[in-house]
Amino acid sequence: MKKLRRSARLVDMTQYLLAHPHTLIPLTFFSEEYGSAKSSISEDLSIIKEAFEEQGIGVLKTVAGAAGGVKYIPQLGLKQAEQFMHGLLEQLAKPERLLPGGYLYMSDILGDPGTLQLIGKLFATVFADKEADVVMTVETKGIPLAYATAAYLNKPVVIVRRDNKVTEGSVVSINYVSGSSKRIQTMSLARRALAEQSRVLIVDDFMKAGGTVRGMIDLLQEFRATVVGCGVLVETADVSERLVDEYISLAKLQEVDLKEKQIALELGSYFTVEG
Amino acid sequence: MKKLRRSARLVDMTQYLLAHPHTLIPLTFFSEEYGSAKSSISEDLSIIKEAFEEQGIGVLKTVAGAAGGVKYIPQLGLKQAEQFMHGLLEQLAKPERLLPGGYLYMSDILGDPGTLQLIGKLFATVFADKEADVVMTVETKGIPLAYATAAYLNKPVVIVRRDNKVTEGSVVSINYVSGSSKRIQTMSLARRALAEQSRVLIVDDFMKAGGTVRGMIDLLQEFRATVVGCGVLVETADVSERLVDEYISLAKLQEVDLKEKQIALELGSYFTVEG
Repeated sequence: MKKLRRSARLVDMTQYLLAHPHTLIPLTFFSEEYGSAKSSISEDLSIIKEAFEEQGIGVLKTVAGAAGGVKYIPQLGLKQAEQFMHGLLEQLAKPERLLPGGYLYMSDILGDPGTLQLIGKLFATVFADKEADVVMTVETKGIPLAYATAAYLNKPVVIVRRDNKVTEGSVVSINYVSGSSKRIQTMSLARRALAEQSRVLIVDDFMKAGGTVRGMIDLLQEFRATVVGCGVLVETADVSERLVDEYISLAKLQEVDLKEKQIALELGSYFTVEG
Repeated sequence: MKKLRRSARLVDMTQYLLAHPHTLIPLTFFSEEYGSAKSSISEDLSIIKEAFEEQGIGVLKTVAGAAGGVKYIPQLGLKQAEQFMHGLLEQLAKPERLLPGGYLYMSDILGDPGTLQLIGKLFATVFADKEADVVMTVETKGIPLAYATAAYLNKPVVIVRRDNKVTEGSVVSINYVSGSSKRIQTMSLARRALAEQSRVLIVDDFMKAGGTVRGMIDLLQEFRATVVGCGVLVETADVSERLVDEYISLAKLQEVDLKEKQIALELGSYFTVEG
């Protein structure tokens, strides 16, 4: 047990809370860790709480009672989120991103840790109350988004594979029709990868007709799971029939003019639909 | 400009530094942000520095002069690393992890954000001085490790695809022989995904003969890139001829007895080879 001064305690408690989001930490944990009275720890926590809220880092929830403690809930405020997304839309609208089939090159954006952290924090803000047990995505490009989100929710990630050559014991596979290409494809998940009756948050990078997400939802029925939410980074607007009803998007691809090399994007449903 | 008290400054500077590893932050940034004198900021930083070092979070490097500032270098100390890895080895040695072909089921471990953070911090510690421009891996299971590492190094991630159906413009593909299965496979990377002459850190989850990593190294020649390091979570010991010379492993799979369902693991080369 090391006795720390308040200033050192503030630094260490801050990093500990940030590293353990959505986790109830008993006050006794800190008071034992630092050899400090609970009253001092409480004062520290109200300093941190105020700073977190003022700087838009998130909220500290205090739970009273014997089983009580403190919980850090990461939150990206609406203004911060809009500001960040406007910057992202500007990046996404660059003509050189246009790919055949009306897709956008996003690998650089999905490879940047700072950008991912903000997207993950935003999804974690949106779905904070859904009590998801796991965050799920399908390989490959959705994976970084799922991890970024899961890190802020402090939940494990489950990755659905795009083939059935998975060597992880008993596997559940389904065929699904990719809404845009109309081709039949396969996705698979090992039995042991997801507990029965889990509450699942689905995250993906791009949604056209929604065939891939629909496939995940169908696959999840085999695990008697509940889909508690679905978030996509970019959805396309030009879809006659969407295969998924409930989802939120952060950006919407309004129009792609391959000839004129123009991309029109706007904020997604999270920002535009009345909540 | 908001004028903050020291306690609030300490909380906010701590979270800012943690969110921006390996980034030089000028003192003026903080003094302008908080409306404080540089001398106060310097005092704050020495409090944070001491706390970071005492709690094993990492080091704060101060760079003097006009272009100077402070840089947070995440570090997982050798003792912490060994303690963490011993716990991981215990988890990995559970007989139910055995898969056909002498592989181990690791998806649960690679899905857990807390575990990934520690592995990522460990790789970032090992390769901190390599001045990598990007962290690279091949889909699928290495991806979370690459992102966890890249987050602590503050570098982008580049993901090599296992097919050549990548729709990202001009693509470089190579065929390689998976060292263990002896099958010919393909891996691909879009031209635009990696700048020529980049310094690349390769990260992967599992290495048997090293065919996959060898494939990545060969692919990187097409981009005139330099491999500055290679880290794998688990290597297997029973390999007659390794296709890769220089790498570090965190764990070594000594023996797998499929009949007796026993797995023998020990610490990898990072812990056992004289540095």
